[in-house]
Amino acid sequence: MVVNYPNGKHYAKPEIKRPPQKKTRNLTTFSNRGMSLEDDINDSNISYLRQERAVIHKKPTPIQIVNVDYPKRSAAVIKEAYFRQASTTDYNGVYRGLYLDFEAKETKNKLSFPLKNFHQHQITHMHQCLKQKGICFVILRFSSTNRLFLLEAKQLLTYWEKQADGRKSIPVSELEKVGYEMYYGFSPRIPYLDVVDQLIDQSLSNI
Amino acid sequence: MVVNYPNGKHYAKPEIKRPPQKKTRNLTTFSNRGMSLEDDINDSNISYLRQERAVIHKKPTPIQIVNVDYPKRSAAVIKEAYFRQASTTDYNGVYRGLYLDFEAKETKNKLSFPLKNFHQHQITHMHQCLKQKGICFVILRFSSTNRLFLLEAKQLLTYWEKQADGRKSIPVSELEKVGYEMYYGFSPRIPYLDVVDQLIDQSLSNI
Repeated sequence: MVVNYPNGKHYAKPEIKRPPQKKTRNLTTFSNRGMSLEDDINDSNISYLRQERAVIHKKPTPIQIVNVDYPKRSAAVIKEAYFRQASTTDYNGVYRGLYLDFEAKETKNKLSFPLKNFHQHQITHMHQCLKQKGICFVILRFSSTNRLFLLEAKQLLTYWEKQADGRKSIPVSELEKVGYEMYYGFSPRIPYLDVVDQLIDQSLSNI
Repeated sequence: MVVNYPNGKHYAKPEIKRPPQKKTRNLTTFSNRGMSLEDDINDSNISYLRQERAVIHKKPTPIQIVNVDYPKRSAAVIKEAYFRQASTTDYNGVYRGLYLDFEAKETKNKLSFPLKNFHQHQITHMHQCLKQKGICFVILRFSSTNRLFLLEAKQLLTYWEKQADGRKSIPVSELEKVGYEMYYGFSPRIPYLDVVDQLIDQSLSNI
């Protein structure tokens, strides 16, 4: 049935212009949104906060402020400042009363994760947190294949120390064994607390 | 016996000018060093880290960076940046596997601690952390009398909510009852983990 306007004029359905659809390069539904790993983790942390499941925040970048201008009737402007070396990992917070601490890194490599992505201060901090029985890990992303792994800090530290033997990276084949592969979801995008639940269960069963 | 120089000239003991000694206003030995509460807490955190007792860090001030200059052969200079509102408290970390979270504030008042020292985002964050069973508290300093108290977040939140009834501050007399008075020490300067030990023991005995 054709419906016309009361004035008899023909009604033409307006053409809606859609943005051209991007070809997705792999099977996961929520990937390739042009989001960085950091964005995805921050978004996941917001999801977990809203769900009242955990309180995890990214730490701000440490800055050495040298000169600040205080203009009248407007916000203070930092005119000279420098980036400082961080002394911790990027993320920490509380989950089930326990202390969570992690770092997130990505690589364009396909077959192994280069250890040069980590810095000594992060490694030292992980050592310190493990001594206090914190739950420490890293989230590793292979950007070209979009694979995600959670690796416990104690495993990372083993690889870090083995660098002296010449091995400067962790092969994907090993991450498949000693790490936990994660898959993108909707909310949270990176469901890393599901792995943390497994880690907690394991440590409880070891007591 | 008077000792003269070999040339027979009289030796006069040089007069050493000492800086005028400040009158100390109270009995604690390590107070009145001109250190701010923040300095004292940072110093305490370094002590605890060295003693391998806890890993607690102050979070950097969040900054919105607008313009960065990358000069040749020298460090990047931030040329324009703005202070951002924090979304958490200032300090967090791990102790005995548990998550610790706190804020430190000082007042020049002598008889009560004004609640206006706290901001809504800090209160909200403490609520969130308590839901995840974090150990949350505030360290309060009265700078004119140099008294220090640790107050559990659940107590602070009660006072915060009672503000609607007109009470805008916490009297020292109440802090003496519901808080924990702390005394300056050498290393750590503020031995707040001793109070945290008591809090943990209490919560364990309540299970």
